[in-house]
Amino acid sequence: STAEAYARACFEKLEVDAVTLSPYLGYDSLQPFLKDPSRGVFLLCKTSNPGSVDLQDLTVLDGGQSLLLYEKVARLAQEWNQTNNLGLVAGATHPAALARLRSLAPDVWFLTPGVGAQGGDLHAALTAGLRPDGLGMLVPVSRAISRAEDPHAADLALVEEMRAVRRSLPDSGIEVLIPDFQGSEAALNTVIQARPQIINHNVET
Amino acid sequence: STAEAYARACFEKLEVDAVTLSPYLGYDSLQPFLKDPSRGVFLLCKTSNPGSVDLQDLTVLDGGQSLLLYEKVARLAQEWNQTNNLGLVAGATHPAALARLRSLAPDVWFLTPGVGAQGGDLHAALTAGLRPDGLGMLVPVSRAISRAEDPHAADLALVEEMRAVRRSLPDSGIEVLIPDFQGSEAALNTVIQARPQIINHNVET
Repeated sequence: STAEAYARACFEKLEVDAVTLSPYLGYDSLQPFLKDPSRGVFLLCKTSNPGSVDLQDLTVLDGGQSLLLYEKVARLAQEWNQTNNLGLVAGATHPAALARLRSLAPDVWFLTPGVGAQGGDLHAALTAGLRPDGLGMLVPVSRAISRAEDPHAADLALVEEMRAVRRSLPDSGIEVLIPDFQGSEAALNTVIQARPQIINHNVET
Repeated sequence: STAEAYARACFEKLEVDAVTLSPYLGYDSLQPFLKDPSRGVFLLCKTSNPGSVDLQDLTVLDGGQSLLLYEKVARLAQEWNQTNNLGLVAGATHPAALARLRSLAPDVWFLTPGVGAQGGDLHAALTAGLRPDGLGMLVPVSRAISRAEDPHAADLALVEEMRAVRRSLPDSGIEVLIPDFQGSEAALNTVIQARPQIINHNVET
């Protein structure tokens, strides 16, 4: 099938570890991406863009119950996540949705964009979406720093937020993936001094 | 936005004429792909794969009315198609859905895969989905010929179907896009002899 060819292209040619997919085509379109448990899929669920309301906030009937389409997708993800490699894209711009999604999909990881440039609040997002074990969310913050008018002020603000998160959610693990910060060593040092548990340097090609 | 970057990559780097997109992210994710009226978007609506039921066949509430999610997508597409470059992907494996979609989106073009290898019937699909002007559908047929056990028998069968369509739907226009037929000149000649109105040879790189 076409999905199998796309999965091979992603994982064998591009050698990526995880891919973001739309749920619209259904489970059989995801299967080829899920069969290798060392590779992961994040399924679009409640995205951070304004247009997310158009489909994702539609009311659907599920059995006798009515719920929003993105809530139904979370239910399906919890059911489809048989090999612990299926997560959800759930934007930081919707903290109430994050809390609801965590109750519908207690195990899955969330990929949560929208902090910074799009107005999402890191602390509110983590409080709403983390699992009871303090894990379960990946929060990419890139444009908020790399395209800030003053990147150094922006990275200091992020570090301050990380400190606040650690104070109020002491069990949470903070991992920093550093895209490039436009090559700024000063920005890099500021983040390192905040002592995240893990730092990963993602070299952009 | 990310959608703008993807649109530039598709249209400026890859230089494609049209792209297939999922409606799940909403209108703002489509806008960058629609602003050049010489480029087109086909929006996934009712796809030909078995998993299409998982989301596309959910019942949604729209105002006071209940309808299926793919029907709602067709309504949105009819509304979003401001520059006549937004179509729908509607599989040949669901002729009843095609008829319903045509009534909800009377103007838009359908891209209709699923004839042949996936079991869709060309004549049934065209009868259900063509506009009253005899146009409005693009029906790719590729695996059914290129991967047939006997490609020559398969192309003769397709030609016979084209003849039957022309007899019963005399206003329809038949355009043949030839992917490669694995370089078979005999297959090419068979199709040419059926006199489609247009032949386009799509050289695969």
